[in-house]
Amino acid sequence: MESIKYITLLTDFGNRDSYVSEMKGVLFSALPNIEVVDLSHEIQPQNIMEGALFLERIWNYWQLPSIHIAVIDPGVGTNRRILLIRDNQKFLICPDNGLATFIIRQKHTEIRYIRQYELSKKIISNTFHGRDIMVPVAIQLVKGSNWEECGPIVDNITLLRVPPITIEGKYVYGEVIHIDRFGNAITNIRKEEMQNLLPLYAKLTGKFYKIPFCASYGEVGVGKPLCLYGSSNRLEIAVNCDSAYKKLRVKVGTTIKLEVDNS
Amino acid sequence: MESIKYITLLTDFGNRDSYVSEMKGVLFSALPNIEVVDLSHEIQPQNIMEGALFLERIWNYWQLPSIHIAVIDPGVGTNRRILLIRDNQKFLICPDNGLATFIIRQKHTEIRYIRQYELSKKIISNTFHGRDIMVPVAIQLVKGSNWEECGPIVDNITLLRVPPITIEGKYVYGEVIHIDRFGNAITNIRKEEMQNLLPLYAKLTGKFYKIPFCASYGEVGVGKPLCLYGSSNRLEIAVNCDSAYKKLRVKVGTTIKLEVDNS
Amino acid sequence: MESIKYITLLTDFGNRDSYVSEMKGVLFSALPNIEVVDLSHEIQPQNIMEGALFLERIWNYWQLPSIHIAVIDPGVGTNRRILLIRDNQKFLICPDNGLATFIIRQKHTEIRYIRQYELSKKIISNTFHGRDIMVPVAIQLVKGSNWEECGPIVDNITLLRVPPITIEGKYVYGEVIHIDRFGNAITNIRKEEMQNLLPLYAKLTGKFYKIPFCASYGEVGVGKPLCLYGSSNRLEIAVNCDSAYKKLRVKVGTTIKLEVDNS
Repeated sequence: MESIKYITLLTDFGNRDSYVSEMKGVLFSALPNIEVVDLSHEIQPQNIMEGALFLERIWNYWQLPSIHIAVIDPGVGTNRRILLIRDNQKFLICPDNGLATFIIRQKHTEIRYIRQYELSKKIISNTFHGRDIMVPVAIQLVKGSNWEECGPIVDNITLLRVPPITIEGKYVYGEVIHIDRFGNAITNIRKEEMQNLLPLYAKLTGKFYKIPFCASYGEVGVGKPLCLYGSSNRLEIAVNCDSAYKKLRVKVGTTIKLEVDNS
Repeated sequence: MESIKYITLLTDFGNRDSYVSEMKGVLFSALPNIEVVDLSHEIQPQNIMEGALFLERIWNYWQLPSIHIAVIDPGVGTNRRILLIRDNQKFLICPDNGLATFIIRQKHTEIRYIRQYELSKKIISNTFHGRDIMVPVAIQLVKGSNWEECGPIVDNITLLRVPPITIEGKYVYGEVIHIDRFGNAITNIRKEEMQNLLPLYAKLTGKFYKIPFCASYGEVGVGKPLCLYGSSNRLEIAVNCDSAYKKLRVKVGTTIKLEVDNS
Repeated sequence: MESIKYITLLTDFGNRDSYVSEMKGVLFSALPNIEVVDLSHEIQPQNIMEGALFLERIWNYWQLPSIHIAVIDPGVGTNRRILLIRDNQKFLICPDNGLATFIIRQKHTEIRYIRQYELSKKIISNTFHGRDIMVPVAIQLVKGSNWEECGPIVDNITLLRVPPITIEGKYVYGEVIHIDRFGNAITNIRKEEMQNLLPLYAKLTGKFYKIPFCASYGEVGVGKPLCLYGSSNRLEIAVNCDSAYKKLRVKVGTTIKLEVDNS
């Protein structure tokens, strides 16, 4: 395998506190030629679903030898395991709490868990395994450690429950699973699951108006609602140049009833 | 021309969602030695003026071969053009919606627009041209593509309307065009337009008190208002160690009446 | 000394305005091989204590030749000095306003101040010494300038007043000095000052309930309060999977009464 040049960080640590900078200090001090890339540190605190969806979206765009460290870790200090997942030339290091749910579904080679006790002679804090365990593991990998030695293979990792979509005749039922920065409501309805069903319009629970299916935001007037397949090929509810979250009062869990052309 | 080592990103995508990380994944996967620099991703959603003023401020400080990708793009998916602007050794890739207004005013060599259809055989989403068009164009440029081949020269690009200042005897009238993080109110009054007129004090519409012109924030007491030429040489209204936005209730559009010494 | 490859930036400029990008433009234009790392730009505006605590936390994790530029600088443009502090292979450039308080306490080699007038022939703004003085000083250092020539040695720098802890029999009194992103309340009680006193539980002023001392967040139920030594070895008040700031209404300045085992 080519040598690893990139390590990315995905956390709920925020950009105000020093936690991320402590991890970077440890990384740069040990690896003079590493490139560290911030994916996001603004995942909502302890929101594992948000972190898992983030990883899903970016995973296939990173086609290079890289280690991705994801620390949304409310169970830090308990006996939850830390995983090391290999997908071809990419590694994901994260707690075993569901963060890897959508990565696993795509494809993977192997999942191991990290045997902490062998890891290091250093003091490990009970509140910051990102800095004290995950970063040191990444450093060992970059330095050429054999990844099989990090710990045993595991099969039964923690997976998030993703609400399934329901197809009934000319209706597809789904729900909102994420609100993005623009107030777009991302749903669990993925284009690839819809086969040859062409969406016509969406309806929200308890609302009478129909939201037309479009190809781009600008197909409706400014301030008007629409639904479309977003850039991750999930159906999303949006308002052109505005926020569906604010204007339509959609939120995570809102049910979407999608009328489709099944002819 | 020297080879391009730096690509910068300016967007309204925020630091919470995965959009920026998707762009970076595509960039790093294609260009192993590129440096990607985040300018900001916290431009207010769809606020083209804010993005244009940001570009104005940074433009002359980047004196090196570089590509700047600016994605504040409410018209994504419509037939708005995407521009490729060359200013000596710097390139700006952005939608043709006014983002380049203040860059163009400074100096430029050439403006072209990107003929999307020739760009790529890949699928282009209707909602994310930053990732699917602008980043691939940047990659081609770094790889050595002849920039003239990206598309035809254009003259008539979209420019933002910038309110002009008015000079009447010993008064100059301007207005607030941006509030920064500190609550400083940045105006459209630029030092270079003031020639030999020396500001004495400013007044806000409907307010009686006079705001003294100073050389630095600390010239007035803590909590006291002042005006001064900020670090971009625009007149700004500030409150020492506090927020003019909160304390003086200035906002974008507030009229400034500046008394000057025109003797 | 090895050559310096890393420059870090710590500011209260936020991630929305262009200030940080202007500094980076100057740095990259002058130093083609430099790596610039953002520590944080979300320090609360003008909050020197927050910046000083941030520097304390990260300082010992950066074990490599590096220059750290810290710009929380409400006194910009007044006659406050700018310091250049050397700690072995690390430099800190910051205003003389207390930012270096906790770095100095750790260990240091020498403190100098920068004689601005010799620095540069360029125009220096009165509002942005980060860009116009501190960055140029860093550039000179990276280029090999003799650091002793930057200015004279100083002894009497500005230090923040840190409230001391009080030990009275089986009680230790301290106070909250920072609230982090998770709502954890970080106190001035540091593990190393506690010698062999083992914390048993904490009480907040005016509250009757006892907050148990734990080794990790997960030792109490979700939503339950606890105290523990955080990852910087300061005592912190937390709520498992929630915010102590919101749930317990602790804030900076809240008194902590800690019962300890002094047997």
